[in-house]
Amino acid sequence: MSQLETAMDILGKTFDRYAGAEGNKGTLNKAELKTMLEKELPSFLKNSKNPDQCDKLMKTLDQNGDSEVDFSEFVVLVAAVMCAHHGRTKK
Amino acid sequence: MSQLETAMDILGKTFDRYAGAEGNKGTLNKAELKTMLEKELPSFLKNSKNPDQCDKLMKTLDQNGDSEVDFSEFVVLVAAVMCAHHGRTKK
Repeated sequence: MSQLETAMDILGKTFDRYAGAEGNKGTLNKAELKTMLEKELPSFLKNSKNPDQCDKLMKTLDQNGDSEVDFSEFVVLVAAVMCAHHGRTKK
Repeated sequence: MSQLETAMDILGKTFDRYAGAEGNKGTLNKAELKTMLEKELPSFLKNSKNPDQCDKLMKTLDQNGDSEVDFSEFVVLVAAVMCAHHGRTKK
């Protein structure tokens, strides 16, 4: 498996682990999204001054309005975080 | 570093390695994109029946029309490949 395939594999497994916790196994509900952010992107929530950050993010990501974040909505989050991070840390 | 942060780190480093080969160090030109696809996503090119796949992909990804794929354009490709892959292998 190439480096890029490894990274994509980790992303898929990470999503599945949190999405599988309760309810629909293929999507993240708000509680699952919050758990994922707390465990996987602690600096993302810590740096936010807004206590409703998770609610706001849920609304932004949930493009089809079903109160669940599916895999394609999840990768939008990952892409946004990566772009912000990559832009800042690039020399 | 969490699992998700590790995956994002690998994605960033993978992009930088190929983007840094020639010309603008922060973007992939067509030759760099082709090398990256051949090394990192061999099944992506192999499964395509279209010999112009790389040219077509370049045009699709290059949203601002400068003939270079920047990091935000690269993550769109990763997201698309991941969604296709995840959708197919999901049980």
